[in-house]
Amino acid sequence: MIQPRTLKGFRDYPPELMMPREHLLEQCRRVYRSYGFAPIDTPALEYAETLLGQGGEESDKLIYRFTDHGDRDVALRFDLTVPFARFAAMHVPKLGTPFKRYHMGPVWRGENTAHGRFREFWQCDFDTIGTTANAADIEVVLVIHDLMLALGLERFCIRVNNRLVLNGLLEELGLAGKTREVLVALDKLGKIGRDGVAGEMAAKGVDAAQAERILNLAETRGSNADILDRLGAEFGQNAKAAEGIRRLRELLDVTRQAGVPEERLGLDVAIARGLDYYTGTIYETFLTDLPSIGSVCSGGRYDNLAGLFTKMALPGVGASLGLDRLLAALEEMNRLEKVATPAPVLVIQFTADRLGDYQRMARVLRGQGIGAEVFPEAKKVGQQFQYAEKRGFKVALIAGPDEFAAGTWKIKDLARRQETASPESEVVGVIQRLVLESSS
Amino acid sequence: MIQPRTLKGFRDYPPELMMPREHLLEQCRRVYRSYGFAPIDTPALEYAETLLGQGGEESDKLIYRFTDHGDRDVALRFDLTVPFARFAAMHVPKLGTPFKRYHMGPVWRGENTAHGRFREFWQCDFDTIGTTANAADIEVVLVIHDLMLALGLERFCIRVNNRLVLNGLLEELGLAGKTREVLVALDKLGKIGRDGVAGEMAAKGVDAAQAERILNLAETRGSNADILDRLGAEFGQNAKAAEGIRRLRELLDVTRQAGVPEERLGLDVAIARGLDYYTGTIYETFLTDLPSIGSVCSGGRYDNLAGLFTKMALPGVGASLGLDRLLAALEEMNRLEKVATPAPVLVIQFTADRLGDYQRMARVLRGQGIGAEVFPEAKKVGQQFQYAEKRGFKVALIAGPDEFAAGTWKIKDLARRQETASPESEVVGVIQRLVLESSS
Repeated sequence: MIQPRTLKGFRDYPPELMMPREHLLEQCRRVYRSYGFAPIDTPALEYAETLLGQGGEESDKLIYRFTDHGDRDVALRFDLTVPFARFAAMHVPKLGTPFKRYHMGPVWRGENTAHGRFREFWQCDFDTIGTTANAADIEVVLVIHDLMLALGLERFCIRVNNRLVLNGLLEELGLAGKTREVLVALDKLGKIGRDGVAGEMAAKGVDAAQAERILNLAETRGSNADILDRLGAEFGQNAKAAEGIRRLRELLDVTRQAGVPEERLGLDVAIARGLDYYTGTIYETFLTDLPSIGSVCSGGRYDNLAGLFTKMALPGVGASLGLDRLLAALEEMNRLEKVATPAPVLVIQFTADRLGDYQRMARVLRGQGIGAEVFPEAKKVGQQFQYAEKRGFKVALIAGPDEFAAGTWKIKDLARRQETASPESEVVGVIQRLVLESSS
Repeated sequence: MIQPRTLKGFRDYPPELMMPREHLLEQCRRVYRSYGFAPIDTPALEYAETLLGQGGEESDKLIYRFTDHGDRDVALRFDLTVPFARFAAMHVPKLGTPFKRYHMGPVWRGENTAHGRFREFWQCDFDTIGTTANAADIEVVLVIHDLMLALGLERFCIRVNNRLVLNGLLEELGLAGKTREVLVALDKLGKIGRDGVAGEMAAKGVDAAQAERILNLAETRGSNADILDRLGAEFGQNAKAAEGIRRLRELLDVTRQAGVPEERLGLDVAIARGLDYYTGTIYETFLTDLPSIGSVCSGGRYDNLAGLFTKMALPGVGASLGLDRLLAALEEMNRLEKVATPAPVLVIQFTADRLGDYQRMARVLRGQGIGAEVFPEAKKVGQQFQYAEKRGFKVALIAGPDEFAAGTWKIKDLARRQETASPESEVVGVIQRLVLESSS
C-alpha cells in the first residue's frame, strides 16, 4: 500500500478551502471582464530558456526544471508575467493593440517553506499593453477598487506613486546615479523608521541634507492634492517629476469623477516596488483593518514587456491580486463562510420508492437557480440531518407518505430549526426567501 | 533575443479560444454545484509513487517525471482520478461520506501528438463516493443531461449500460473466464460490425452460438423498456444480471420522473468502457448531430476508489466532461461565438479631458452588470471603431462637446450600424435592450 501524502510546500484544497478560493476567482473574473479584460491561458510547461534569467540567479534556482521525453530542457512557469511576455511576442502582432488580458492560474517555485510559503500558488494578473496612455494606468485603480468591493471589502486604501516623480526628485538632488540604493533604503521607511533610512542613505553616500529632503517628501502628510501641490512646488521644474505629477493628478481627478472616494486612494511617495521593472505608476492595496498582512493587490507601469522575445515595443500597466494573501486576510477577519456544500438545499430521501419525486422537486429548484442535493440513501432521517449540518446546508426538504398524500412538502430552516409545511406550488417561493435571508 | 515558442503538444489560449473554454468551465461549475458537488483541488505535482503503476506501463511512460530540488522523485498528474484517490484516503475520514466533489484542472501526458493530441489538457470530473446507492448512479445521468442543456445542446443521447448485466450474461453463457476478450471484441461493434466482432470472438474460443446470443442482445432494438424486458426474460435468473437490470430500470424510471425525455437516454448493452475499472453503471454521451466526435461525457461506477492508499472501502460513481472534445464539437457545429472581448460596450474616448465622464458612465453600466471598456487613447474615432469591430464589441457609446452640452450620449449598435441619441438617464435601459437582443 502507498502512503497517501502531498509534497512539502504543496497542499490539497478540500471544499471548505476551495469554495472561498473559487468565490474569489469568480469575482476577479467578473470584475476584470466588466472592464473588457479578456482571458488568456498559457502552458504550465515552457522551454527553460523562455523562463530562465528573467528574475535573476536567485529566481532561477527556484524554478522546477527538467528534461522531458523528447530531451527538451523544460521548466514550470514561476509567474504569469514571463509567459505573458512570450505570448505577447507571438500573438499581439495578430491580436493588435491595445491588448487587455487577464490570466489566472497556478505557478510553481521551489521556495523555502519556513515562512508558510507554498511551492504552488495562484496568480491573478490583469494588464493593458501596447499603450502608454495614462487612461490605462487610471483604470487599474478602478479595477482594484471594484474588485475589493466585489469581495465585500469596503475599508481599504489603494496607495499610488509614480516612479517618474522619484526619478525626477533624485535627478534634481544630483542622486540619479544612486537611484537604486536610495529606493532600497526608502522602501524600508515603514519598517525601520526615519532615522534608520537616513542611516542607510548616509552609508551609501547620500548627504544629510539630501536625505532630509527626500524623507520630508516621503513623509508629507495632508490630502492627496496637498501632497501633489508640494511636489509640484519643489520639483515641478524637473521634466520627469512634472510628468509624474501630471499623471498622478489626472489619476486623482478621473478616479474621483468615476466615483472612487478619496479615502480609498492615497498618494505615497515612499513606495517603489519592483525596482528594476516598474517605470511609471505603482500600486499597492492595504486593508484598513489588517494592514499587517501587506499589499493584497499590487502592480505598476513598465516600459517594455517583451524585450527579450521581440523588437516590438510593448509598454503596459497592470496589477496582480494576491489570492492566497487575501484568503488568509479574509479568514483572519472572520469573513469566510464555513460551508462545505455549494448547494443550500438538501432533499431528504425519506423513502427510496419516491426518489423520482425527490429528484423532480430538486430539478425544479435547480431550474430556479437554487442548488439542491438529494441524499443518496434512504437512511434514518436523523442521520441525514446530521449530514446536512456537517456540510452546512441551509434548508432541508422532506416528504413522506403523509406529505405526498396531501401534496405538500415540509421545509426545515436548519439554522433556526424551524419547520413549516407548504403546498408543492409554494415550495420554490418559500425556499427562495429562506436562502436569501440566510445569505444576507 | 530568445525565440518565443511553445513546446510541442502545448498551446496558448488567446481570448477567442479562452472565452468559450471559460464559458464551458463556468457551466460545468454551475451545474455540478447545483447538485451539491463541492469543488476540490490537488497539486499539479505529486510523489511519483502516488501516480505510477495506476494505469499500466504504457501510461507510466507518458508521465512527466523528474527529481526536484529536494531530490524527491516527483511527477505531474496525468489525470484527476489518481490524485482524487490519494486525496480521499487522506481527507474522507474527516470529511465523511457520502462525499460529492468536482475537480476541474489541467493534466499532463507526454502523448504522441500525431493525431492532434495535446500534452496538456483539462479534465472536469465529478464523483460521489462512499455509497453504493443507485440514487448516485441515477444522478450522474441528471447532471450530464442538465450540463448539455446548459451548454445550449438539446440534441444528444446519454447511453447507459451496467457491467453487472454483461457479467451475468457471460456467466450464464459459461464465458466468465473470457470476460475481457469478449468485451474488447464487443466494444468494436460500432467500428467493425457484427461479422467482425463474431470473428474476433471465434478467435478467442467463443463458439458461434454464444457469439450469436451476445450479439443479438447487443443489437436489440426497441424502447429502453423493451430492451430491459428482453434482458430480464433471457437472463433474469442470473443474480448479477438481475441486479444490473433492476438498477437500470430504476434509472429509467427516476430520470423520466425527474424530466429527462426518453430520447435523450439510451440503453446500450454493447458499451463496456474502462474494462478494468468500472464495475456497475456505465455512461457515454453522444451528440446527435456529430456522433463521429465520440463521447463528450463518460464515466461509470467503480467498487473501490482508493484501494492503493487506504483500507477504507470507497465505492463511487462519476463522470468526466471531455472539455476539448466538446469545444471542438461546438466549433465544428458553428456554435461558438467569435468574440475577443468579454465586455459588450466600448466607450469611445472622444476627447481626453472627458476621461472622468467616460469612466463614470462605464462604471454605471458595470454596476448594472454590463461590461464596458473605455478606449485608453483619444485616437481618431474611426480607429476606435475599427478596434471595436475587430474585438467584437456590440455597442459603442460616444459623447463629444455637443453631447455633453445637451446631456446626451450617442449609442451605436455596431452590428446593425444604427446610431441613436439618448439622455444620460436612459442610456442603461437602451443598452440593456441592445445587448439582450444581440445575445439572443
